[in-house]
Amino acid sequence: LVDMEEKQIHGVERQHKAEVILQELRLLKEKVDHLEDQKSQYERRLKATKAELSDLQQLLLSKNAEIDSLHTQLLARPLSTETS
Amino acid sequence: LVDMEEKQIHGVERQHKAEVILQELRLLKEKVDHLEDQKSQYERRLKATKAELSDLQQLLLSKNAEIDSLHTQLLARPLSTETS
Repeated sequence: LVDMEEKQIHGVERQHKAEVILQELRLLKEKVDHLEDQKSQYERRLKATKAELSDLQQLLLSKNAEIDSLHTQLLARPLSTETS
Repeated sequence: LVDMEEKQIHGVERQHKAEVILQELRLLKEKVDHLEDQKSQYERRLKATKAELSDLQQLLLSKNAEIDSLHTQLLARPLSTETS
């Protein structure tokens, strides 16, 4: 009888360990899913921010060209003087 | 004897299943580590790109101010004419 009880206890412990490990597996799988979600969100945000950066760099180039053109126009016009 | 052999086979199978599950646990933990690495890399890259974007926006504001100033200067100077 004692031997049978021991076997039962042993079986219950093993069952418990198996459940703990399976629970750990489930949690890890959920964590992987969550991290992969976050990763793809970051990918999207980084891509969008880089596109915005690229647009702004283009805009900056056109502003620089406009400034050059305005400087050229200014140089072509004489300063108005008191004596004119 | 047959009963003992069956128990042995059963034990070997259970051992094999446990190894498969522990291997799966190891792989999932490695995957979590790898994903967390990637996530923090994305965080850093996104932060750096946003800082760059913010700098460019400041620069753009100063270019717009420069363009406004140049327009004002141009308006203050008369067009040079052929007859002057």
